[in-house]
Amino acid sequence: MSGSSRSRSGDTRPPSLGASTQAEDVSGATQRALIERRRKSMGANLLFYRDPVHLVRGEGVWLFDDENCRYLDCYNNVPSVGHCNARVVEALKRQAGVLNTHTRYLHESVVEYAERLASSLPAELEMCVFTCTGTEANELALRLARAATGRRGVVVMEYSYHGNSNLIAELSTAGLPPERRPDHVVAVEPPNLYRGPYRAGDPLAGESYGRLVAAACRELDERGPGVSAFLCDAIFDSQGGLEAPVDYFEHAYRYARTAGALCIADEVQAGFARTGTMWGFERYGVTPDIVTFGKPAGNGHPVAGLVTSRKIMERFAESQFYFNTFGGNPVAAEVGCAVLDEITERELIRHVVDVGGYLRSRLEELATKYEIVGNVQGLGLYQGVELVSDRQSLEPAAHQARRIPDAMKKEGVLIGLSGRYGNVLKIRPPLVFDRANADQLLDVLDRVLAAA
Amino acid sequence: MSGSSRSRSGDTRPPSLGASTQAEDVSGATQRALIERRRKSMGANLLFYRDPVHLVRGEGVWLFDDENCRYLDCYNNVPSVGHCNARVVEALKRQAGVLNTHTRYLHESVVEYAERLASSLPAELEMCVFTCTGTEANELALRLARAATGRRGVVVMEYSYHGNSNLIAELSTAGLPPERRPDHVVAVEPPNLYRGPYRAGDPLAGESYGRLVAAACRELDERGPGVSAFLCDAIFDSQGGLEAPVDYFEHAYRYARTAGALCIADEVQAGFARTGTMWGFERYGVTPDIVTFGKPAGNGHPVAGLVTSRKIMERFAESQFYFNTFGGNPVAAEVGCAVLDEITERELIRHVVDVGGYLRSRLEELATKYEIVGNVQGLGLYQGVELVSDRQSLEPAAHQARRIPDAMKKEGVLIGLSGRYGNVLKIRPPLVFDRANADQLLDVLDRVLAAA
Repeated sequence: MSGSSRSRSGDTRPPSLGASTQAEDVSGATQRALIERRRKSMGANLLFYRDPVHLVRGEGVWLFDDENCRYLDCYNNVPSVGHCNARVVEALKRQAGVLNTHTRYLHESVVEYAERLASSLPAELEMCVFTCTGTEANELALRLARAATGRRGVVVMEYSYHGNSNLIAELSTAGLPPERRPDHVVAVEPPNLYRGPYRAGDPLAGESYGRLVAAACRELDERGPGVSAFLCDAIFDSQGGLEAPVDYFEHAYRYARTAGALCIADEVQAGFARTGTMWGFERYGVTPDIVTFGKPAGNGHPVAGLVTSRKIMERFAESQFYFNTFGGNPVAAEVGCAVLDEITERELIRHVVDVGGYLRSRLEELATKYEIVGNVQGLGLYQGVELVSDRQSLEPAAHQARRIPDAMKKEGVLIGLSGRYGNVLKIRPPLVFDRANADQLLDVLDRVLAAA
Repeated sequence: MSGSSRSRSGDTRPPSLGASTQAEDVSGATQRALIERRRKSMGANLLFYRDPVHLVRGEGVWLFDDENCRYLDCYNNVPSVGHCNARVVEALKRQAGVLNTHTRYLHESVVEYAERLASSLPAELEMCVFTCTGTEANELALRLARAATGRRGVVVMEYSYHGNSNLIAELSTAGLPPERRPDHVVAVEPPNLYRGPYRAGDPLAGESYGRLVAAACRELDERGPGVSAFLCDAIFDSQGGLEAPVDYFEHAYRYARTAGALCIADEVQAGFARTGTMWGFERYGVTPDIVTFGKPAGNGHPVAGLVTSRKIMERFAESQFYFNTFGGNPVAAEVGCAVLDEITERELIRHVVDVGGYLRSRLEELATKYEIVGNVQGLGLYQGVELVSDRQSLEPAAHQARRIPDAMKKEGVLIGLSGRYGNVLKIRPPLVFDRANADQLLDVLDRVLAAA
């Protein structure tokens, strides 16, 4: 394929900090032609940026386009141990050339990977099932919860995202018009201490948000389906990266369990050191019944699954079985182990705490400088910058926010947007991001906010 | 990981034709320990064979266990261009070291892959969406069909298998107790000319089986959900690999479309040259509205998706969107292109017709030799051998069938079982399987049937 040839031969050209592709130069024409081919063969435009980026190479926190312009990746959480991480790529290369079958045959790597994941979690979470994607992991978690409880209902957050299958899309309230929300789904207000019903400074905020889960469980009981699960992502990715009150999950889990629900931690976003602990729920001192994982687990290779208790697995196995063609195959298992090795040996948890803390303190400086920055929120290397047009009414500055990723891309920095009102700048770089990278990001953000 | 080290250093030991792992030798004890570790960390036993095979290496049609015993793979359809195919592994290695992001950025390979898939299909099937697994592809196909028709119901086959998510498990009647079948699913008798209601020699069999689809559509209308799709796998994998009457799909599609349904061809099993044509439905002279693909598309790397018309895609995009983190990423696209290259350059379609025809004729000789072989069915390199205890009543010889894969494994040949009654020997090797491989398979099958 020609897509990657230029970067491999053209590395001697000095990287620049990005360039607009609107110019009528050759690269622009090439790119327009590629976009047109893509529109014809792949349809609806899911491309990021008004001028999409045509990437051909990645390395660590860097991405390079077809003109060899270099971008600082402050957005992608999948390549969490760095784009094209050498250890991960080596594991992939080695195993793909030796054997790539499935879990119907014995293989040691998948057992080792399962053991290592379980050992990173509380003792009762001891059994793994491997899938290919986070969506499939959340799907299976729901099947386990329904089998264990005999009920169908699910409590989720307002403006949640848990995946793209039929069932999970119904639980992903961010993408579903309220009138299409089915009877077995009740959504609660996420514990947003900045703009939710209970705010920072309220000592009962955790308890109060937790009570909403209790009410939602009652609602599901009254409607008929009953409650099988409370499903929540501990970094609240689609809600803009929230820090819940530290006692929120303790209360929410207690209420959910009192109602007979299982507690599912969707760790597809928060897991694997992103928030400064190996798992996002650790900060909150709770033990979920089922933990799902995905995106960063294979650093780009599809690796996902869940970990749960023996009892929950056995209840499921009484009446159903689950097999996933690609899930936990020898290549996925070797890649998964290599990612765990990188997290351990590069001390990425400590690193995330350090760099995340530095990034946060510098973002908070920007909040004192620019009136539009209403709040900085998040944990570790997941930081959300809430833009508001009025610090009293908290009116979301969505219009201004929408322009910022494009403006930053022109200056060679890739970030995204999040939140119910589309007004939260999402900063979620590969975990190998360092203080110098943070400085570059912040300098560009400072300039862009000054011009906003 | 130690799992693959022995095969890499131990290739000088001459391969044998398999060995029992029940013996109390060191390997046996090692294997028991690994099985016990697996039971603790991964739960319910999904392992094939009473004595599971501990595989460490694959090459072409061959698999090697931890004692360097060699097995002829007559079962695995995922590594269709051969275990550890050099071109595919090379593409994987090359791209994984250069860039592995997602389809929110422009990349040429995924566009090229989409174009090549579309060009292998009828002209109206022009737009691709990439997923990670066949389950996800079938999930999305249903979302498209429901968006296009505004109805929810689905007509499937009795004893079907289409995947492992909640929705698709409901449509997979092979694994669902009839009392749990939901209102929006109606299953019809598969067009089994050997033991179904209309049999070989009946010139109206195709029309008669087709009418069952019409009746199922009416049933869904009467129940309320209406019919959104007729979903069928053209090789009828879980039903034992059937050859439908040549006019079956023509009638079934006509009736389904008259009722307003879209026709979804689940080509996860039948696609990519398996049946002697690039796509399984080609033999039947029909054009589906949506074609889903998976398993063999990446030869073990997760590559899957669907191809459909612009109109159907646009209807979906009016109200919904779909994004898959790993689907269609640069590595998946390069691997997918390499598989297509192998199919073309090794002339695998012609090869499948040749070797499949030879295999079939020799299997039919066995049918004349052994009373227990009631029927040989299937297409190309998908052959099913139906075992019966009585050729008049067609009583399935399930008990005898269950022993045969284990007995053949001991002689170094891996096959599986299929069918509603578990009495069909499933022979579905990598497509690079040749006449000499077929001879080895048939010699072993002959001996095992003689001793049955």
